[in-house]
Amino acid sequence: MSTTQIGGVTVNTQANVYFDGKCVSHGITLADGTKKSVGVILPATLTFNTGAPEIMECVAGACEYKLPGSDVWVKSGVGERFSVPGNTRFEIRVSEGETAYHYICHFG
Amino acid sequence: MSTTQIGGVTVNTQANVYFDGKCVSHGITLADGTKKSVGVILPATLTFNTGAPEIMECVAGACEYKLPGSDVWVKSGVGERFSVPGNTRFEIRVSEGETAYHYICHFG
Repeated sequence: MSTTQIGGVTVNTQANVYFDGKCVSHGITLADGTKKSVGVILPATLTFNTGAPEIMECVAGACEYKLPGSDVWVKSGVGERFSVPGNTRFEIRVSEGETAYHYICHFG
Repeated sequence: MSTTQIGGVTVNTQANVYFDGKCVSHGITLADGTKKSVGVILPATLTFNTGAPEIMECVAGACEYKLPGSDVWVKSGVGERFSVPGNTRFEIRVSEGETAYHYICHFG
């Protein structure tokens, strides 16, 4: 069961474009001020840097991720989440065979 | 003056990915039920098909567009809008020198 919609939000109209468009997201702010982003990663292997801790929730497609200090790629599919500590870096890869990884990024 | 944020909306968490990711958008629904999308087009020349008429509003970057029946490429920059009739096709191009064209698509 994945989160298909999020209501009562303010959406930033300008997208965040990372890695030449391999990752595109739009920032949203909930009524209580909480900031999240909704985004998509196309087939690629990308290294992300975190500021605040993040929880990545898959809403469509799938990816594999590798957390700091680990050599293991773990799959994350629809309805699954994984947590990333703050101030670190982690890797996400989407295989060429996959269409994309659609996610909600929850901060803090 | 461009629209940097839109409040009181429900956002679809799954992105719309067109043309191998050269165009990525997220659908939003306003409180009154009006549907729009916020998206970005990366450097490319793309042909879009319309169902409902569309108004394209630039919120960052720039593009050129060519409407049906015209041979003229017209530039559209931040704060500018252009209208496209329903049930037709039109072209948008973003030059390699541009970063991207960020837009709000208003329907109807």
